[in-house]
Amino acid sequence: MSLSPTQSKTHLNTQIVLASRPTGAVTPDNFALREEPIPELSEGQVLVRHHYLSLDPYMRGRMNDGKNYAAPQAINAVMIGGTVGEIVATRHAKYAVGDTVVGMGGWQQFSVVDANQPGAVRKVDTQHVPLAAYLGTVGMPGVTAWYGLLKICGPKPGQTVVVTAASGAVGSTVGQLAKHHGARAVGIAGGPDKCAYVVNELGFDACIDYKAHEDAAGLYRALKAATPDGVDCLFENVGGRVMDAVLSRMNAFGRVAVCGMISGYNGEPIPMTNPRLILTERLRIEGFIVSEHMEVWPQALQELGEGVATGRLKYRETVADGIAQAPEAFIGLLSGRNFGKQLVKLI
Amino acid sequence: MSLSPTQSKTHLNTQIVLASRPTGAVTPDNFALREEPIPELSEGQVLVRHHYLSLDPYMRGRMNDGKNYAAPQAINAVMIGGTVGEIVATRHAKYAVGDTVVGMGGWQQFSVVDANQPGAVRKVDTQHVPLAAYLGTVGMPGVTAWYGLLKICGPKPGQTVVVTAASGAVGSTVGQLAKHHGARAVGIAGGPDKCAYVVNELGFDACIDYKAHEDAAGLYRALKAATPDGVDCLFENVGGRVMDAVLSRMNAFGRVAVCGMISGYNGEPIPMTNPRLILTERLRIEGFIVSEHMEVWPQALQELGEGVATGRLKYRETVADGIAQAPEAFIGLLSGRNFGKQLVKLI
Repeated sequence: MSLSPTQSKTHLNTQIVLASRPTGAVTPDNFALREEPIPELSEGQVLVRHHYLSLDPYMRGRMNDGKNYAAPQAINAVMIGGTVGEIVATRHAKYAVGDTVVGMGGWQQFSVVDANQPGAVRKVDTQHVPLAAYLGTVGMPGVTAWYGLLKICGPKPGQTVVVTAASGAVGSTVGQLAKHHGARAVGIAGGPDKCAYVVNELGFDACIDYKAHEDAAGLYRALKAATPDGVDCLFENVGGRVMDAVLSRMNAFGRVAVCGMISGYNGEPIPMTNPRLILTERLRIEGFIVSEHMEVWPQALQELGEGVATGRLKYRETVADGIAQAPEAFIGLLSGRNFGKQLVKLI
Repeated sequence: MSLSPTQSKTHLNTQIVLASRPTGAVTPDNFALREEPIPELSEGQVLVRHHYLSLDPYMRGRMNDGKNYAAPQAINAVMIGGTVGEIVATRHAKYAVGDTVVGMGGWQQFSVVDANQPGAVRKVDTQHVPLAAYLGTVGMPGVTAWYGLLKICGPKPGQTVVVTAASGAVGSTVGQLAKHHGARAVGIAGGPDKCAYVVNELGFDACIDYKAHEDAAGLYRALKAATPDGVDCLFENVGGRVMDAVLSRMNAFGRVAVCGMISGYNGEPIPMTNPRLILTERLRIEGFIVSEHMEVWPQALQELGEGVATGRLKYRETVADGIAQAPEAFIGLLSGRNFGKQLVKLI
């Protein structure tokens, strides 16, 4: 499909907005679907037709009204989200119809983007890297893995890296990068299928199915068996009891990159059981948001792009079909129903 | 008193040994007093008569048998501890009778030291700095404050530093150094007398008496009033509910130097209520042991010594009289009965 600037207003754009803030777990009622006309383009703007929308755990935090690292998502506004797509109308000299671009188009079929705004839209090459990968391994999740592992953890060859949510978009990249840097990679994931994938396809050294160990002692024993030399680096995507277990295996001077605490997104704070380990093991625990470290993105994206183009970096995607499925897919993501990067196909 | 090498064996050395490991709180029964003859000196050894013994919270950790950052204190061995004293007998060419020295002589009146062992004994000048200060502001506690504040927290002028156990040997130095570097210093201490001292004599900007706020909400309100611009640096000596309260006031990119968790020394782990703040505020939390950073000691000791010699760095001491009082004084230290640096006078 290609739209001329004058045609665009005759088309409707299906969107998902935040209808209400969750109290506890997210429900479909928190979202509403609406159709809006596509506005006329102004000078400097482009119209992007989205091929894929990315669903990511950080969105859960934005749905709350409380203090967070970013402004809350406004009620009745289109849910924020990363998108890839193609330009179907343009009033900007540097962007042509047919260009494939990545941006933050949100939960909708189309977005009108002010292309002069730095970072608002970025052309990407789809010859060597599939378009959707720019939302995953060669996008924000990949750079998140790269930054947390290499800039915060800094694993040395032979050290042990543990990553939670290991089959996810971030975790799968963390483990593969750790292996590439000579470390032992141990994943933690939910279910035997995910763990088999993490070991057999991604090449991790071991994976622990946390769902098979509901009690702390059992989880600890499994972890101990998988990390005979202790843990030097924890890349944390989850928090809660799994994080507690890994912390109790940390070696002296261990590093913890705190990327996500998905287990606490629903409001109730989940305590860290034994923070005294920070002292006794002289741990360094550091939270980070990858969008605050834009200076590393070019290098990280280049390395990640090469990894995907050459087949060295593997990934898996779970794809929901159509914008109307986005809320259900997002709720599934928060409970770990996805397998790998969660996308919504919009075309 | 001066002892010749041949005389020394006729004297008795009163010692405190670890009689049993505590189960829960430390009790006097965990210690035993004994008298031992002073052994003959071998070549290269010196005999030090201790003037002061230092009592420090880290000793509590050593009394446990569990995993810790240092080997546990052996049962029936003399309790470890920093000491200052004078050489009363010598078989080492570089040390003369009358030299004032600092070392790790332990809970006893005398120690025989192999002076060739690096760091075992260090001569100190008592012309500008009182001998006992080498166990406090110009010793391990002072360097601890210096390292945690300047190397981990790194406060910028105008930022807010909070320190717990603010009237203690470490905390009092942290706040004064923070002020010297242009930061706002807020102390947390137990009782109105300690808080008055912290503000009026040490020059902190504010102090919160945690004993006046048994409930979390009240403690938070007091802290909010004392830190109107939030907290950029927490120097943590205590842990537990006080740490929880300060963490909830941390600004983005705040740093936490974890120096002690005295509230958890008695076995039961004390959870961190809301570790999700690490992520939302992108905190960096780092545990450290100052003896693992010997490279900074010369610079730190010089700056701290100048501060004490010029009167810029103030401190207070609580002095127990005689080795037999050491256990009771140590138990008091663990519950905050001391005011400033806890010493035992041995001469």
